[in-house]
Amino acid sequence: MKSETEIVKSDIEIAQAARLLPIGEIAEKLGLREEDIIPYGRNKAKIDLAARNRHPKTAEAKLVLVTAMSPTPAGEGKSTVTVGLAQALNKVGKRAIAALREPSLGPNFGLKGGAAGGGYSQVVPMEDINLHFTGDFHAITTAHNLLAAVIDNHLYQGNALNLDPARVVWRRVLDMNDRALRQIVIGLGGRTNGVTRESGFDITVASEIMAILCLVEDLKELKEALGKILIGYTYDKQPIYVRDLHVEGAMAAVLKDAIHPNLVQTLENTPALIHGGPFANIAHGCNSLTATRMALTLGEYVVTEAGFGSDLGAEKFFDIKCRKGDLHPNAAVIVATVRALKYHGGVARRELGKENLDAIAHGFANLEHHVRIVERANVPFVIALNRFTSDTEAEIEFVQTLCKEHGFPVAVTNVWAEGGNGGVELARSVISTVENSNQTFHPIYELDGSIQDKIEAVCRDVYEADGVVFTDEAKRQMAECERNGWDELPVCMAKTQYSFSDNAKAIGDVKGFTITIREIRPSLGAGFLVCLTGDIMTMPGLPKEPTALKIDIHEDGSITGLF
Amino acid sequence: MKSETEIVKSDIEIAQAARLLPIGEIAEKLGLREEDIIPYGRNKAKIDLAARNRHPKTAEAKLVLVTAMSPTPAGEGKSTVTVGLAQALNKVGKRAIAALREPSLGPNFGLKGGAAGGGYSQVVPMEDINLHFTGDFHAITTAHNLLAAVIDNHLYQGNALNLDPARVVWRRVLDMNDRALRQIVIGLGGRTNGVTRESGFDITVASEIMAILCLVEDLKELKEALGKILIGYTYDKQPIYVRDLHVEGAMAAVLKDAIHPNLVQTLENTPALIHGGPFANIAHGCNSLTATRMALTLGEYVVTEAGFGSDLGAEKFFDIKCRKGDLHPNAAVIVATVRALKYHGGVARRELGKENLDAIAHGFANLEHHVRIVERANVPFVIALNRFTSDTEAEIEFVQTLCKEHGFPVAVTNVWAEGGNGGVELARSVISTVENSNQTFHPIYELDGSIQDKIEAVCRDVYEADGVVFTDEAKRQMAECERNGWDELPVCMAKTQYSFSDNAKAIGDVKGFTITIREIRPSLGAGFLVCLTGDIMTMPGLPKEPTALKIDIHEDGSITGLF
Repeated sequence: MKSETEIVKSDIEIAQAARLLPIGEIAEKLGLREEDIIPYGRNKAKIDLAARNRHPKTAEAKLVLVTAMSPTPAGEGKSTVTVGLAQALNKVGKRAIAALREPSLGPNFGLKGGAAGGGYSQVVPMEDINLHFTGDFHAITTAHNLLAAVIDNHLYQGNALNLDPARVVWRRVLDMNDRALRQIVIGLGGRTNGVTRESGFDITVASEIMAILCLVEDLKELKEALGKILIGYTYDKQPIYVRDLHVEGAMAAVLKDAIHPNLVQTLENTPALIHGGPFANIAHGCNSLTATRMALTLGEYVVTEAGFGSDLGAEKFFDIKCRKGDLHPNAAVIVATVRALKYHGGVARRELGKENLDAIAHGFANLEHHVRIVERANVPFVIALNRFTSDTEAEIEFVQTLCKEHGFPVAVTNVWAEGGNGGVELARSVISTVENSNQTFHPIYELDGSIQDKIEAVCRDVYEADGVVFTDEAKRQMAECERNGWDELPVCMAKTQYSFSDNAKAIGDVKGFTITIREIRPSLGAGFLVCLTGDIMTMPGLPKEPTALKIDIHEDGSITGLF
Repeated sequence: MKSETEIVKSDIEIAQAARLLPIGEIAEKLGLREEDIIPYGRNKAKIDLAARNRHPKTAEAKLVLVTAMSPTPAGEGKSTVTVGLAQALNKVGKRAIAALREPSLGPNFGLKGGAAGGGYSQVVPMEDINLHFTGDFHAITTAHNLLAAVIDNHLYQGNALNLDPARVVWRRVLDMNDRALRQIVIGLGGRTNGVTRESGFDITVASEIMAILCLVEDLKELKEALGKILIGYTYDKQPIYVRDLHVEGAMAAVLKDAIHPNLVQTLENTPALIHGGPFANIAHGCNSLTATRMALTLGEYVVTEAGFGSDLGAEKFFDIKCRKGDLHPNAAVIVATVRALKYHGGVARRELGKENLDAIAHGFANLEHHVRIVERANVPFVIALNRFTSDTEAEIEFVQTLCKEHGFPVAVTNVWAEGGNGGVELARSVISTVENSNQTFHPIYELDGSIQDKIEAVCRDVYEADGVVFTDEAKRQMAECERNGWDELPVCMAKTQYSFSDNAKAIGDVKGFTITIREIRPSLGAGFLVCLTGDIMTMPGLPKEPTALKIDIHEDGSITGLF
């Protein structure tokens, strides 16, 4: 038997050894014609949005959401399970498509590698997907910064709108981890360099345009949504929108290609639509509606994911994305791991490799809470226990026993090591759940309440908090939103992913806490009100030893050190 | 007969009405195989650099440089003549390829439209070429800003290299006209936001990485050149290079696709390689060496262009690009217009539409001077008199007479209105010049002199200045360059394009002036020393009524207002 170091390949080695089909063949498998796809290299393509009209369908495919229990800082493999499940569904005879988020380029140069699944459940070509892919994020960066330039130009060229330079809320973005740009002063060096004011850069995935691109269904809606973006206030505190500047047409033109979903494949040649990737805190954290919709048109099963745990990602998937797109998820998969159960049972990070059944029993309450969240939306579920090499058989069996005691359907997955074969049990369980369920999805809260009602509903029904505290600033902003007629929108909670509370250290199934709402930021283009429960980092920094210093490219074009 | 308003279409209307061939067919015409090209949509592709080795050739194609007399602020149609000449050469039976610069995205939203030729001598698809194209400029932006983030992270994480924050010379870039970013203060808001210092953004075409990408021939050379970039100085004034930070591998990985030349076509289906677009003042202003080399491998005639007039663009083409790439241009086309001749004869801009033979006679000295510059490099030439609708027959004939009197070969072109047919006379003249010439190209100055020698050679032999004045700062910097061993590099003059002197208002064939060298900026990665004769704007601003406010995209994806 080989030792682990001999047989365990890195993600990039596995990906580079893959036998990819030409992207035209993947498209053909989906029933797409040549005129439906726009190739980007040999292994990537965009699917023309108009192709959906050319392929009408009487019954839509089944939609399966992959969500997770509260994560550990190391991550629980949710994307890997999503890819693995799509592969496994194909193995058991269902035409399944994965619908995933696009990874951000910037973080590749920081701490961690890409976000395209892992092991034998990856999407490929992974270097391309993690670098420029089809240019969607660059287009968003450009559209975002075009608006910023037009705003500052407006201030410089006479400020006909009477915009208060100190009340401009639109910043700039770059797809880069660059802490030095978080807070800056622009317009220095004299009159011809514009109006001096404080501003800053966020990372591109935090752009409201990213959220917009993921929630519209065509160019017309895109342009309307861009026009609704709030850019700031006049000196007498009246809101100013993009449409007041007349720049939404140019911004939409910049996004003309980005709106079409991207088609790639998994290591097992399962089709994958990878499109859009908004933050899961200050935005809704799901791939694009155009991609999900396209996948529903082309497949029998669509496996998609949402950011973080179900308290954040799934809640927003239900309340923002499904409501907006009139989607009806047929099942949810809740990813759990032995490591995360132990972590939420109180085990320190460095001890997570040791067998500890007591901690699992204790941490199980966290998973139970996530089950309750999914049930709030009336969506049937399966728990995917995602195996890690450090898990012992006793631990795996113990989790299975606990699930059975609670009446939770559970399947053990080993998709990292085995690809689709490691997800067949889960696939069968998902199919049976979908086919035998008569549950009908509904969002967790209704839109017609006040902003406070909606925030309280999420805090009570999802986080199970004892109450909500609003700072004076948040109260003032809620009143302002109501005055401006923005209170009909859903809320988008920006909260730590590590806890149901707003304290990242309160792990497990924390009880007896209140949530403090500190700030309300209207994302009027995206169509939600961001409710901040604490400081949210929207521009990451690089670590002391950034990955960038190890990445290399060789004469044959192969890349090392990226993952 | 139809009125002019009925028959004159805009560039974008002409381009949108074009019948494009699938890019695979264009590639096939060039003898390329399917594995040689990487498609980007239906009408754009990259040609794998390795294809050159798969298509070895005993004799290279003929290389024709299109340059121009000193321009008017409105431009003389140099790119249009380049495209038109390539089309015309095909019409007379030569397999010709155009090798052009990629336009910058940012300026599309400002004053003027794109830079892809005009009328019936355009490259298409022009919206794509002028917006994101194949993502090369976004890749350069990313690689540039990755380095900036790593530099600021180095300062923040302990500054092991002892880099002086006040002596960092590497700024950031965006492909956007954004004057508010010219001069900024970064790293505000407390310790975790990095080291506070003054910096700023340039437009992407001003990035040294753009110049590097255009002067290397493969990935290995690219990585070496990136490693040589000077990023700043230590507190004790020692230079620090990218290789000291170990980030050149990651930067090259970001540029892995950008290094391959882009293939598109003209309105008449003539192949065009459009790749790279460095500034013609602080950089050398030519398309990439990889594209020119690839075109020379694939065609019989390659028509390429350089920035501005011959005093800037052609001089750098000869002394930087041809020297670096061991290219031997076979002929130069000097574009002249009746308008420019009148402008340099002293006619005000608003009067340029009126017939004025005296002014032409007077302005002809400017053209004569450009002829002398091309002759300095021992390259045979043809003057292309590029017709505009306001030109009178008497004016055209008068210019032809003047050329004949001086012994200058001249051909009238009407490529804007007639496409290749309007350039047949020029094509025949170019072919005859190339076939009958026994001149051998050489650079204008030798590399082995001192920096001062090289600057003086350009000022004397090209600009015909009476002398050169060096500021104390420039003298100090020249001494520093010599101390650091950087004096073996060619010089890259940054001077106004409107005059042979460093005063934009001294038009015509100005005499009796001295050139003042104010600053020397080493572009060590690109391999030249930029010599600044005045303030050079490296980040444009938007005008009072930016084009961005008129651009729109419609439900069918068509764009209006872009040009």
